[in-house]
Amino acid sequence: MTINWQQLFAERTARMQASDIREILKVIAQPDIISLAGGLPAPELFPVDHFRRAFEWVWETNGQAALQYSITEGYPPLRQFLAARMARTFGIRTTAEEILITNGSQQGLDLLGKIFLDPGDKVALERPSYLGAIQAFDQYQAEYAIVPMDEDGMQTEALEELLQRETRVKLIYAVPNFQNPSGRTMSLERRQHLVRLSAKFGVPVVEDDPYGELRYEGEPLPSLKSLDTAGSVIYLGTFSKILAPGFRLGWVVASGAAYEQLVLAKQPTDLQTATASQMAFYEVCKDGFVDQHVERIKEVYGERRLTMLRAMQTYFPEGVRWSNAQGGLFFWVMLPEHIDARELLVDAIKEKVAFVAGQAFHADGSGRNTMRLNFSNATPEKLEEAIKRLGRTIERRVGVTNVVRG
Amino acid sequence: MTINWQQLFAERTARMQASDIREILKVIAQPDIISLAGGLPAPELFPVDHFRRAFEWVWETNGQAALQYSITEGYPPLRQFLAARMARTFGIRTTAEEILITNGSQQGLDLLGKIFLDPGDKVALERPSYLGAIQAFDQYQAEYAIVPMDEDGMQTEALEELLQRETRVKLIYAVPNFQNPSGRTMSLERRQHLVRLSAKFGVPVVEDDPYGELRYEGEPLPSLKSLDTAGSVIYLGTFSKILAPGFRLGWVVASGAAYEQLVLAKQPTDLQTATASQMAFYEVCKDGFVDQHVERIKEVYGERRLTMLRAMQTYFPEGVRWSNAQGGLFFWVMLPEHIDARELLVDAIKEKVAFVAGQAFHADGSGRNTMRLNFSNATPEKLEEAIKRLGRTIERRVGVTNVVRG
Repeated sequence: MTINWQQLFAERTARMQASDIREILKVIAQPDIISLAGGLPAPELFPVDHFRRAFEWVWETNGQAALQYSITEGYPPLRQFLAARMARTFGIRTTAEEILITNGSQQGLDLLGKIFLDPGDKVALERPSYLGAIQAFDQYQAEYAIVPMDEDGMQTEALEELLQRETRVKLIYAVPNFQNPSGRTMSLERRQHLVRLSAKFGVPVVEDDPYGELRYEGEPLPSLKSLDTAGSVIYLGTFSKILAPGFRLGWVVASGAAYEQLVLAKQPTDLQTATASQMAFYEVCKDGFVDQHVERIKEVYGERRLTMLRAMQTYFPEGVRWSNAQGGLFFWVMLPEHIDARELLVDAIKEKVAFVAGQAFHADGSGRNTMRLNFSNATPEKLEEAIKRLGRTIERRVGVTNVVRG
Repeated sequence: MTINWQQLFAERTARMQASDIREILKVIAQPDIISLAGGLPAPELFPVDHFRRAFEWVWETNGQAALQYSITEGYPPLRQFLAARMARTFGIRTTAEEILITNGSQQGLDLLGKIFLDPGDKVALERPSYLGAIQAFDQYQAEYAIVPMDEDGMQTEALEELLQRETRVKLIYAVPNFQNPSGRTMSLERRQHLVRLSAKFGVPVVEDDPYGELRYEGEPLPSLKSLDTAGSVIYLGTFSKILAPGFRLGWVVASGAAYEQLVLAKQPTDLQTATASQMAFYEVCKDGFVDQHVERIKEVYGERRLTMLRAMQTYFPEGVRWSNAQGGLFFWVMLPEHIDARELLVDAIKEKVAFVAGQAFHADGSGRNTMRLNFSNATPEKLEEAIKRLGRTIERRVGVTNVVRG
C-alpha cells in the first residue's frame, strides 16, 4: 500500500500555505534582482566582529554549560538584561521572571496560538496585518475579526464595537510601531483606548514590537505594555531587527498564568532556545553596544527611507499613494483601484525588481491594489533604481488597463 | 476586569503539564546531588575547542550570511553532509532534499504532531515510551494505542492486531535502538515486521533514533528507514547525544508530501533554525571529526554503563530487575511490585541521589514500580556511590512496606 499522505494530514494543514514572502525569497536569490520584498536587515551592518568576540568569550568562560541542556525559560543573565533595558527604553516594568526567550518572535506567535486558540476562536487583527502572525494563528484554525486602520493605526472605536458583538475573541493582535506591512504608527489616544478595552473586555492584547526602536522621524510613543495596568498586554520583542535575525532570538513578556502556560508550551515544542546563542547575545549586549548599534542602524535606514520616499515622489505616476512610515522597514503603497499588485509583480520581476503584493496581509482577502516596499536591505543607489523601474512598470500597467477598459 | 486566563486558554492546554524530567533538573541543580535523572551527556566530553574553531571559521568566511535570514529547510551543505553520513552509518538512502533541519528532535516531534494529529487521533506507542514524544503529541490532543514491549522491543504481533482493530491510528512511534526509557533494542525480525505493517496499513512509522550510534555491546541492526521501501518511515536524527544538545540541532528525513508539509509547518512555527549554528555544526562535522568523537563517547559511556551494571549487581537487593541496555544512556529498573518509585524518589533525594520515576513514560498510567537510571552524566565513582545509596534506599523501603503489610 502506498501511503496516502493527504488523507493522514490533520485538518489544520489545509490552512498551511507556502508564504508569498518565503517563496519570493527564493526567486530573488538571483543576484541581479533588486529586492524590496523581504523584511531583511542590511547585512553590511551586522556586527560580525562583536559576535566573534562574544562567542570567543562563551568558549573561554562557559564552554561546557553553553553546549549542555538548560532551562526552558532562557539564560537568566540575558533575561535580567532585557528586563532592565525594556524599562529604560520603553518604560516597561517587568522582571526576568516574566520573560521567556523564544526562537524569534515567530515562535512567540506560534506559542500564543498554541495556548489560546481552539478551532473557530477569533483573533482581532488590523487590516492589513503581519503575514507571519496570520500564518501562526492559521495553524490553530483561528477565525479573524478584522479591525480597519487609518493613518493613526488600528481604529479602536471599531474594535470596541466588535468586542461588544463578538463572543469568541481570544486575542487582539497589534503592531503599534511602524506596522508591518502598512508602516503606520498607532496614536497615543488609540494606545490608551486599546489597553482600556483589553482590560474592560478581559481580552489580552499581543503587542508585537520588532521595529519600536527604529524611528527616523517624530517622537517615540509609549508601548502598550508600559500603559498596561491589568497585566493584559503580552509583549513580543526580538533581536532580529536591532542585531541580527539569523540566530532566531526573541522574547515574550507575560504575567502570571499566561507566562507559566507559555513555558509549559515551549517544553514539548523544542525544550529550550540554544544556550550558547543566548550567552553570546548577552555578551554582545551587556555593555551598551546595542544602544550604539541601534543609532547606527537608524542613521543608515533613515537615509534609505528618505531616498525611497523622494524616488517615489519623482518616479511614481499620479494616483499612487503611500503611508507616512516614520520608522521601521517598509512603505505601504496603494495603487489605483484597478491595478492588481500580483500582476504588477510579474511585470516587475521582468524588470528585475521584486516586492510583496499586499493581498497576503489581508486576512479577509482584500487589498488587491496594495504592495509593500522594503527600504532596509538595498543600498540607496539600488533603491532609487528600483523605484524608477517600478514607476515605469506601474505606468505601463495603468496604460494597458486603460486600453483594455477603453 | 481582571484577565481570567484559565478561561481563555485553549482546550489543549489541559494536556500540557510540567515535565517530571524538566522539573527534576531544577531540584538537582544542587551541586551535592548525584543525578541519574536527566538524559544529559557528559559535559567534559563536549568538543568545546572544535566549536570554537568552527565559529571562528563561520565569522571569517560567512559572517554576514550566518547572521541573516535563510531558508526554512536548513543549510544545504549540512543537509548534504547528513545525507551522505546516514548512508554510510545507517544504510539510509536519502538526499539533502528530504532533510529538514529542526531545533532538536523535540521540534521534529512537535511538527509531526502538528501535521498529522487532529484531536482524538491515535498514536501507537511502546509501553513504556519516550516522555518528550508523549508530551509533544499530548499538545495535539492525541489518544494512544499502547503496544507492549519485551526484551526484543515493541511486540509487533500486538501492533498488528491493534492496527486491524483501531481505525484512527495516524502514526506509529518507535525508538528502536536503546529505547528511552527502557534501554531495549528492537530485534531485526521485529524491525522487518514493523516496516511491513506500516506499508500494509498505510500508517507511517516515526523512527526516533538519538542513540543509534552509541552501542557498547553486540552488533548494529539496520535502521527502520534503511528497510523502508514504501517511503512510510519518517526518521528523526539529532546531534544532541553525539556532539552537544545545547544548540538544539536535529533533523527529520521524510519523503514527498510529508516532507513538504513539514516545511510548511516549520515556516509559521519559527521560520528556520539558526543559520550560524548550522554552519558551525557543518564545519565541526565535515572532516570526519564526528566519527572519531563518537568512538570517544562510546569508550567513556561504555565504561560508565559497566560500572553501573556491576554496582546494581552488588548493591541492589533481590527482587530488583533491569533491562539489558546494550547502548544508549539508560538502564531501566523494575522494582518489586509493591514499591512506588515516586515515593522511593523522595527518599532518594534525601540521600542526595535523583532518578526519574517510570510512571511518566507510560501513557496509560501504569509502571508505578519502574525507574530510569542515566549512566552518561556522572563519573564512574559517583555512579557507584549513587547506586550504593539507592540500594540502601530500596532496601529500607522494601522493609517499610513489609512492616506495613505485615
